Amino acid sequence: MSLVPQGAGRAHSVQVPVPRALARASSLLVPALLAAIDRLDPSLQGPVRHHLAGGGKHVRAGLVLVGAAAVGGRDEEAVPGAVAVELVHNYSLLHDDIIDRDRERRHLPAVWAQFGEGVAIVAGDALSALATKVLLDTPTSRSVEAARRLADANFQMISGQSADMAFEARTQVSVEECLAMERAKTGALLSAACAIGAVLGGADGRAADALGTYGEHLGIAFQAVDDLLGVWGDPSTTGKPVGADLLARKKALPVAVAFERGGEAAEELAAILSHAPEAGDVARATLLMERAGVRDAVAAIADEHLHEALEALERVHLEAKPKEELVEIARYVTARDR
Amino acid sequence: MSLVPQGAGRAHSVQVPVPRALARASSLLVPALLAAIDRLDPSLQGPVRHHLAGGGKHVRAGLVLVGAAAVGGRDEEAVPGAVAVELVHNYSLLHDDIIDRDRERRHLPAVWAQFGEGVAIVAGDALSALATKVLLDTPTSRSVEAARRLADANFQMISGQSADMAFEARTQVSVEECLAMERAKTGALLSAACAIGAVLGGADGRAADALGTYGEHLGIAFQAVDDLLGVWGDPSTTGKPVGADLLARKKALPVAVAFERGGEAAEELAAILSHAPEAGDVARATLLMERAGVRDAVAAIADEHLHEALEALERVHLEAKPKEELVEIARYVTARDR
Repeated sequence: MSLVPQGAGRAHSVQVPVPRALARASSLLVPALLAAIDRLDPSLQGPVRHHLAGGGKHVRAGLVLVGAAAVGGRDEEAVPGAVAVELVHNYSLLHDDIIDRDRERRHLPAVWAQFGEGVAIVAGDALSALATKVLLDTPTSRSVEAARRLADANFQMISGQSADMAFEARTQVSVEECLAMERAKTGALLSAACAIGAVLGGADGRAADALGTYGEHLGIAFQAVDDLLGVWGDPSTTGKPVGADLLARKKALPVAVAFERGGEAAEELAAILSHAPEAGDVARATLLMERAGVRDAVAAIADEHLHEALEALERVHLEAKPKEELVEIARYVTARDR
Repeated sequence: MSLVPQGAGRAHSVQVPVPRALARASSLLVPALLAAIDRLDPSLQGPVRHHLAGGGKHVRAGLVLVGAAAVGGRDEEAVPGAVAVELVHNYSLLHDDIIDRDRERRHLPAVWAQFGEGVAIVAGDALSALATKVLLDTPTSRSVEAARRLADANFQMISGQSADMAFEARTQVSVEECLAMERAKTGALLSAACAIGAVLGGADGRAADALGTYGEHLGIAFQAVDDLLGVWGDPSTTGKPVGADLLARKKALPVAVAFERGGEAAEELAAILSHAPEAGDVARATLLMERAGVRDAVAAIADEHLHEALEALERVHLEAKPKEELVEIARYVTARDR
């Protein structure tokens, strides 16, 4: 899922300004990403370029590049990692949109909706394979370690995606299960982005792991905020209908927290989610959760993981300016007014 | 696509006996493959086990193991490669069945038909990521080279699959384009299987490349035979309807050869394929191609590539017994009476 959907020419009222480090990352990433895309079969280049035309803030590429800088690495060492991580992220978007039947991505038609499901499946597969190729075509000990971490994150991301889908059919999901799912689905790739940047920048395992811990908690915090917005977000900024997650019967954090709190609210919520909910049900469920303090509880989970992310940055020596940028990025991607 | 679909308890009249080397490969592969599957998220294990329950002859695993033996390597060195290659092959089957809307695989319901498209997409993604993990979890110079070759083959395979899909919408495809597509779609992974076996078995680059050349031509020869059976195959052994490829307007070798020969047959064939063909059209097209000598021409292409595959085995020193097994496997997978 896009961290901060960027409209093609559409105005947004994001309060927290886009960190400079991300704008810089985009300017380094995009030419390299497009060069990688040129290696695709001609039949896939159109659909993939269409997909990328929607933009995106390239948070993961930013984490790779700033991660490398934080351990004293140079941009050119980290760019292949940024490309590889963005390729994995974008393959997951291509496939997720098919699975979720989302017809729009970044205010453009999703690839499956525009070019057909088969093309979207194969385009995703191609980006996934290309990500590994980018790191292994001329293997060095650093790029191999980056490829190993990326394969691991890809695998965890898919496990999390599958768990998320399996939750939809279940009546109960614990907060612990939900957090484990979100750690895998979102945290693993953000963690790998930071660690890969550090590895390519020449860090030792300890610094790479500390940056990975920052990324993992940042991913969970981001996902918790995303879950909040999935229930209480403003459709004009999220680009999704009111209560989108409840309509899809997703067992994201708000529902898991409500269940764990128990009582009448949990019972009524369970009844609402036991069948395909309608708009009225969604409004009622949202009110129940608000009254039960679920909104504040999920916000507290987000804050807790943001705090843990920032704490991880204190455990190793990092260059001052990139470290500041990592803090800025963390505040940006966990902002609640997007 | 499965080289030789094996029914769950269903009798087949394959004339060429299954080479012993393949049976032996299966006995080494299956426990290791199931152990790898245990690492999947619980939500994916059922669907993937269902998919694998259909069997298969494990030709690719056989090529990895015999490839290793041919350069003096040991089975235990090659098993991770066999697992990784079979994982990539099976992820492609999971996704291909969705794309082609094939509801059956190895006489069992396809995963997408049984568990839903989303599950089949994600299960394929998980197997693809797991394949890389199997080779990179404890990287050695050999396993890294194997992972590099596998990523490359995966990428080529997807490019070929995409080209194949793009051909369906085109009116003309040259034999050269068709062969390039089949080299990528089928030849690349068979080539990688052989080369990865050689690499893991300790071969130098030259021996690995020679075995890779054997696998590539074997893949094209196999695909040419598959194309023949797609038009002239017996539905009771292929498990597909008569003229399945023509019904799907696939521009496989027979159609490309017919176009290249030109004349009235090509014109009529083009007219038939310009709209969605029905059973009567298929019968007519088949007859036209038979009369124009297309069947023999495609068989000659298969023979030529089988010959080139076997010749590649003469270019480097290989152990006698595995070399014989590679010849036997080549004859087996290009047999026309399956």
